[in-house]
Amino acid sequence: MTIIELCPIDTMLVNLFSVFMTKFDFLLFKLKIVLSFSNKAYAMNEQDFLASYNRRDFLSPLITVDAVLFTYHEEQLKVLLVKRGEHPEKGKWGLPGGFVDELQDKCLEDTVLRKLKEKTGVIPPYIEQLCSVGNNQRDVRGWSVTVCYTALIAHQVCEAHIDTVDSVMWCPIDEVAQQCLAFDHHELIAQARERLKQKSLYSIVPGFALPEVFTLPELQHVHEILIGKEIQKKSFRRRIEQADLLIDTGEKRAERGRPASLYRLKEASADYRFIRNLEF
Amino acid sequence: MTIIELCPIDTMLVNLFSVFMTKFDFLLFKLKIVLSFSNKAYAMNEQDFLASYNRRDFLSPLITVDAVLFTYHEEQLKVLLVKRGEHPEKGKWGLPGGFVDELQDKCLEDTVLRKLKEKTGVIPPYIEQLCSVGNNQRDVRGWSVTVCYTALIAHQVCEAHIDTVDSVMWCPIDEVAQQCLAFDHHELIAQARERLKQKSLYSIVPGFALPEVFTLPELQHVHEILIGKEIQKKSFRRRIEQADLLIDTGEKRAERGRPASLYRLKEASADYRFIRNLEF
Repeated sequence: MTIIELCPIDTMLVNLFSVFMTKFDFLLFKLKIVLSFSNKAYAMNEQDFLASYNRRDFLSPLITVDAVLFTYHEEQLKVLLVKRGEHPEKGKWGLPGGFVDELQDKCLEDTVLRKLKEKTGVIPPYIEQLCSVGNNQRDVRGWSVTVCYTALIAHQVCEAHIDTVDSVMWCPIDEVAQQCLAFDHHELIAQARERLKQKSLYSIVPGFALPEVFTLPELQHVHEILIGKEIQKKSFRRRIEQADLLIDTGEKRAERGRPASLYRLKEASADYRFIRNLEF
Repeated sequence: MTIIELCPIDTMLVNLFSVFMTKFDFLLFKLKIVLSFSNKAYAMNEQDFLASYNRRDFLSPLITVDAVLFTYHEEQLKVLLVKRGEHPEKGKWGLPGGFVDELQDKCLEDTVLRKLKEKTGVIPPYIEQLCSVGNNQRDVRGWSVTVCYTALIAHQVCEAHIDTVDSVMWCPIDEVAQQCLAFDHHELIAQARERLKQKSLYSIVPGFALPEVFTLPELQHVHEILIGKEIQKKSFRRRIEQADLLIDTGEKRAERGRPASLYRLKEASADYRFIRNLEF
């Protein structure tokens, strides 16, 4: 009775059905319908869920990628900066990066490599994820997360392209502090520099900032810049030889008067780790 | 003339204005309006930009945090799993984690600590960012990014709370492979385990998975589990003593017959790094 009182419109149905069934039969019939509905709600499968799910219904933090791209040029470590053409922070220098393009990018690495290729014309030979920073302070548009990468590239391979792109420059790492950078990009660069310093103690990853062929003094110098100290030539050479990560091209170049052998990195160089850190 | 031809509706205005000015005057007047508009568009400041900016206008990838929380219990390394109560992947076990709550969370670390506290009742004494994974495959809802953390906690401090929370369990790390986990959580756990293995070679971070007070054999055992090899007792003790990271509580506990000293970690233990890796 109570169910029928709650649904007065059903009394019409009762009259209709009463030709075939008693009121008691009808109550049972209604109960079955109610049970079948609640059962359906409970057992909503993933397909039903997805059919009614719309990502736009939920406010999600902004997500971007950024890259701290290093190179070695004119005996200095330099980092790529891009002048922002759009709001927010329009006109300031910042890191190359941007939003995921869901049609073009299958993964975050696609996004960051696409953005770097736009600016340099090439894919860097070394890239690794540095960290993600997400908070409600770093971007005036609102809660924002950036996934930041460290990458290394030879100056020469992207020189021609960079010359054709407006508002891109290699900034010597020691001069970055004087730039007014967008967002928290100063902190991201500092973190990337620190990570690269650590790497230079136990790997020859910094070699990826050199031209394709380079001399041992050049490799040692990029390590020294990163570590901030001079390394003993003998101990550096011994370490590099033990690691067996270089290919001798057989060619030589005059380096301060004496001919120095030219090397290139073996492919496995990115993953190699010295058993002990470089010492001074 | 051409401007007026392009905008036929203006001829009405010309008729209206012609009482007061010549057609030439009117052309100048229009030119001023056009210039003032384009000027305004060019000089739109950040405030104007933000006033017209709405995050919901842009489709952004989903962003979540996840945590691989380890503990040491019953002489095993265990990882916290949570049974998913909602679609997608409803009913599967997965990592504790979830969405940023923009009202509650100031940064990503707030999100992950809030999620861990919901499940364990406490804030873990050690947490670090592991990596971010973002692609169009990992979540059926669409392009999705997770920022994943590794954390360590003593079993005892959250035992009581975990007992009161449904669908949470400590799964021995060696049995995780047999679980059908949601999303890419198998891969995230494998990455966290590998990172913790590396850390156990050059730090005493694994000690954060132990109870507040512990014996040296316990600390050594959690290192051995992670590294997958036995460590020489003598060399392990020497390394720990050199690092000076433990506080002797002055108390002892019977360990296989002999009384073993009880230690606690110094606060600086999380950041300490052995100069050389542990050797075997």
